[in-house]
Amino acid sequence: MTKKRILISMLVLLLAGWSSAATGDEDGSRLWLRLDPAATTATITGVKGTAMTELQTYWQGGPIVLKRQKGMPQDGYTIKSQGGKTVIAASGDAGLLYGAYHLLRLQQTGQPCDALDISEQPAYDLRILNHWDNPNGTVERGFAGKSIFLNPDPARMQMYGRANASIGINGTVLNNVNAKPEALSTESLLKAKGIADQLRPYGIRVYLSINFASPMRLGGLKTADPMEADVVKWWRDKVDEIYKLIPDFGGFLVKANSEGEPGPQDFGRTHADGANMLAGVLRPHKGIVMWRAFVYNPQSSDRANQACEEFMPFDGKFADNVIIQIKNGPVDFQPREPYSPLFTAMKQTAMMVEFQITQEYLGAANHLVYLAPMWREFFSFVKPSSLRAMAGVANIGDNVNWCGHHFAQANWYAFGRLAWNPSLTSGQIAEEWLAQTFFAPNDNTPQACKTQILDVMLASHEACVSYMMPLGLHHIFAGNHHYGPEPWYKPAGVRADWTPPYYHKADATGLGFDRTLKGSANVRQYPDELCRLYNDINTCPENVLTWFHHVPWDHKMKSGRIFWDELCHKYDDGVHQARHFLAVWDALQPYVDGQRFGEVQRKLRIQARDAEWWRDACLLYFQTFSKRPIPQDMEHPVHNLDEMMQFRIRISNYENPACGYTK
Amino acid sequence: MTKKRILISMLVLLLAGWSSAATGDEDGSRLWLRLDPAATTATITGVKGTAMTELQTYWQGGPIVLKRQKGMPQDGYTIKSQGGKTVIAASGDAGLLYGAYHLLRLQQTGQPCDALDISEQPAYDLRILNHWDNPNGTVERGFAGKSIFLNPDPARMQMYGRANASIGINGTVLNNVNAKPEALSTESLLKAKGIADQLRPYGIRVYLSINFASPMRLGGLKTADPMEADVVKWWRDKVDEIYKLIPDFGGFLVKANSEGEPGPQDFGRTHADGANMLAGVLRPHKGIVMWRAFVYNPQSSDRANQACEEFMPFDGKFADNVIIQIKNGPVDFQPREPYSPLFTAMKQTAMMVEFQITQEYLGAANHLVYLAPMWREFFSFVKPSSLRAMAGVANIGDNVNWCGHHFAQANWYAFGRLAWNPSLTSGQIAEEWLAQTFFAPNDNTPQACKTQILDVMLASHEACVSYMMPLGLHHIFAGNHHYGPEPWYKPAGVRADWTPPYYHKADATGLGFDRTLKGSANVRQYPDELCRLYNDINTCPENVLTWFHHVPWDHKMKSGRIFWDELCHKYDDGVHQARHFLAVWDALQPYVDGQRFGEVQRKLRIQARDAEWWRDACLLYFQTFSKRPIPQDMEHPVHNLDEMMQFRIRISNYENPACGYTK
Repeated sequence: MTKKRILISMLVLLLAGWSSAATGDEDGSRLWLRLDPAATTATITGVKGTAMTELQTYWQGGPIVLKRQKGMPQDGYTIKSQGGKTVIAASGDAGLLYGAYHLLRLQQTGQPCDALDISEQPAYDLRILNHWDNPNGTVERGFAGKSIFLNPDPARMQMYGRANASIGINGTVLNNVNAKPEALSTESLLKAKGIADQLRPYGIRVYLSINFASPMRLGGLKTADPMEADVVKWWRDKVDEIYKLIPDFGGFLVKANSEGEPGPQDFGRTHADGANMLAGVLRPHKGIVMWRAFVYNPQSSDRANQACEEFMPFDGKFADNVIIQIKNGPVDFQPREPYSPLFTAMKQTAMMVEFQITQEYLGAANHLVYLAPMWREFFSFVKPSSLRAMAGVANIGDNVNWCGHHFAQANWYAFGRLAWNPSLTSGQIAEEWLAQTFFAPNDNTPQACKTQILDVMLASHEACVSYMMPLGLHHIFAGNHHYGPEPWYKPAGVRADWTPPYYHKADATGLGFDRTLKGSANVRQYPDELCRLYNDINTCPENVLTWFHHVPWDHKMKSGRIFWDELCHKYDDGVHQARHFLAVWDALQPYVDGQRFGEVQRKLRIQARDAEWWRDACLLYFQTFSKRPIPQDMEHPVHNLDEMMQFRIRISNYENPACGYTK
Repeated sequence: MTKKRILISMLVLLLAGWSSAATGDEDGSRLWLRLDPAATTATITGVKGTAMTELQTYWQGGPIVLKRQKGMPQDGYTIKSQGGKTVIAASGDAGLLYGAYHLLRLQQTGQPCDALDISEQPAYDLRILNHWDNPNGTVERGFAGKSIFLNPDPARMQMYGRANASIGINGTVLNNVNAKPEALSTESLLKAKGIADQLRPYGIRVYLSINFASPMRLGGLKTADPMEADVVKWWRDKVDEIYKLIPDFGGFLVKANSEGEPGPQDFGRTHADGANMLAGVLRPHKGIVMWRAFVYNPQSSDRANQACEEFMPFDGKFADNVIIQIKNGPVDFQPREPYSPLFTAMKQTAMMVEFQITQEYLGAANHLVYLAPMWREFFSFVKPSSLRAMAGVANIGDNVNWCGHHFAQANWYAFGRLAWNPSLTSGQIAEEWLAQTFFAPNDNTPQACKTQILDVMLASHEACVSYMMPLGLHHIFAGNHHYGPEPWYKPAGVRADWTPPYYHKADATGLGFDRTLKGSANVRQYPDELCRLYNDINTCPENVLTWFHHVPWDHKMKSGRIFWDELCHKYDDGVHQARHFLAVWDALQPYVDGQRFGEVQRKLRIQARDAEWWRDACLLYFQTFSKRPIPQDMEHPVHNLDEMMQFRIRISNYENPACGYTK
């Protein structure tokens, strides 16, 4: 060892010691990458780059060789133990980096690392975060502070790169799908270039959301008609400008003719016309267009029908570098939706799923809701191989702990892991996340506690569905936020499909939206077998029952209860589960640092109270239609409907409620 | 029937029909006297008076004879079926009235009335309500509106008289024990005379609370020294003035040298000097003095010791028309206290118990807490025969339903019934109150529902103790009200015995006030057997454990749990009971009028939420000392200590909180 190296080692030791002594408390800023720098630098040889520096800093094992190897699949890697060394091989830097993080994960979770024979490749080439960040730094449906891209902090950008690379995410859309034309101004592009340069070492490409009317509103043209030559030229020039700054720029994400955003239909053109024009100017640079299918208009009698109605005519009409980006469900990121039938209807179009990592409809950054089970449920209906890529709306902000809720980090993590390999189970992912985030290989946390918190994660999405919208209920949120319940919200003048009664259709006879062949016929958009299953109230899975049926209050459920009683019990079960989560967490107090323990505990308490709010508001409101008693064998509502109807949370779309129901 | 009588009957029928048609909803103003006027007037002969008019209006059975009969005990009566008639006999009007109400109660509760042989006499001659009403109409610890005596409404006074007579109450103290000197002004006395005149037909005498300094502050004398001749003369003149206006005036209630009120000690005299002087001027008129033993001063190391310390020296020294009025417990109407040892210590002094009907420390008019079990518990330690009389601090105001909470009426009712016969069980009283107040003899309410709500009443006091102050805890209320928890309240400069830590003494070793022989020796004030029982932590009843002991957190309880765990479970049990009460009530919806159902339901919801507030605030606060986890097998706190510590309810001592915890 040189003197210099000894000095550095001492410094590292000192820092590590200081950090564990001074903290005990952790702030969550290290996410799941909580390895302390290794005491001595391991011998890493071979390809220089981020993989090497990460291993040099954190690897605590024997020598590693980083090897470039032709013919391997993009981003794939092998890790093999060979003659006392560990060899990571890949065709390029990204694969080596993913291999390095794989190895570090094994080390951090205490797996044996001495007889490795690993071969990995991702299910999708494109694994992309969508940031809904606005130019002023607000984040739409962001519950963790301001945009990290507003004034990109180098250390923060580095950590963002490491975190994403460690789970295989290789693309990021920097701005909100409700995009301002200024997103393409030279000033913005220079900023994007700065970010791209910071993320490139971590294998991450940047993308931008664009406003379809940019040629007019930014370029001063008279039209944005995609068939007009100067519009196409404007786009071509703009794209050339971008690629000069960012040679590996990924492409555009487009929300067009949706919720007031401009699109080709404003100029008498189709989604295909618009998407293909952009695809054309991007093709020379190998850029892509991700064209969103999230469309609905107030005239349709069933919002759930509209993506298919608008997009099916263009199946097979899109250019090969266009991918249609479809939300997992046909409405909008509800706690539970059936899958969007567009996924199985379209046969000749490249598709990608858009999951929402940020919990817009799932308790924001206050509720512990682990989303992997929800995404896995989607994949049980939509074959992973039928998709070209995966996108996730990020839950990241400038909060110290990145996501507002320590457990929300698990959703970022799980999204990345599933985009790499959608056949990983929710439990596998949660277990490895917990092991890295809260525990250490040889810590003294009893196995029972670890199992219980794992069970909490796995049960949390279903619990949230139970206390918010069980049995297929959807979109009964408050008028001015998507956090609490207002199933009664229906002020005059608001378009019907923005009010809960449009969705729940409660009346004296029952509850739910008749989407059968006798109703809106939404079931017809599904493959025949599913169509028959959903169409019959006696075969329709009960977890989507009121999604597809207007269910009579006395409909007999599989439990033997009538529907009303079952609904009551579901809500009450959700409340009890939320309380149970708190109890499980509390038992972990001796084993989790004080800061994170307290912060999570505070959130779990909010969640337990909110669960009661949901149960009481929804049951008491629906009871005004069902005219039936709350079953005697469950806990009864403790709030009053009239008081809850007066209660308001005044928040914007850019913030997390400080707490939930406070009456 | 004369024409006039037929007309009256028709009018009565009309009114009855109107009332039952228009209501369905009831407002509770009729209390437990919900008999509709009878369709035809029964034949009532004999002694004219209130008994006769009440029977003429409400009795639906055969002929009744009201008979005066010498030699019967005061207020006693017999009811006998004789030759097709029912004969009520008593030595005076009051006895006949009580007999008449007895008969009406049998009718209203559907008992057979054809073979009666009843003989009743009250346990006490004096059965007295204490109103803590102020001259401005506020009611101290009143949760049901303003004073009914502020502008006495004749119809209201009549109902007040009927209600009290129906349960045997025969005295009422019109004004607050914290009495203004002006209570004895001629203007006030004229007002008292008006009330006395209205209540006399119902056998009720009026009493007044007096301010001991009245001779100075009202009479302009230089002193109120009870040994000074002109002070005595002032009182004699004042008493003469009273009796001229109110010939059957009952006497004085005195709070002296307590909580800042003046008393004989201010002039170097004793409680006995003061009480006996007043007794002397009242004796010629057969008036009495009720002298309160509620005394404590901030210097004593144990407030619970002080009544005995101050009063025992005067045992046997009080005049024979003085009764020492002692609160049931040694501190102050806590959810649970051991009995005040003064009751068993004094051997030669007339004593009466002061119960608090108004729920100052028991959830005000928001919580359903039926108090008969608490009072019966007192009588299991203090023999009823050792007392001369019974007083109850009224829970009555000008609210439509009199008591703020429909179920609070049951406490007024139970107080009267127990003052008549302290050996009635809590269940008997609750059952007859429920039958009169909510049900009718042949209604369709399922017996199971009736049994369940009866069980709720019987369990309610213990439940309240559990969620507020289990295992002997006491006086951990908020600084500015006696409604919610603030076990942490201890601002600088506030006298210690007005702060919770004085009472709970939580520290790292345990919880509770050491009143053993090694501590404040309060146990020594009890009879030897009890002293030994209470003094030993292993024999001390657990429901008063922290009252007498500083209990180690890991003390082994009878359940096998350690003390901390037991405390947690008690609190949680209380929460679950409160929720259960709500469920039971909800099942009664089909059988109770909508207004009362809804009003009670709203209160029960507050109670369930408050129970959670209590549990969470107390456990989270005590946990900062116990440093032990909340047991895993119970529901965990869902509120945060810091948030609860910020929460304030801003109310005066004269109002019911609109709702409980609202964070």
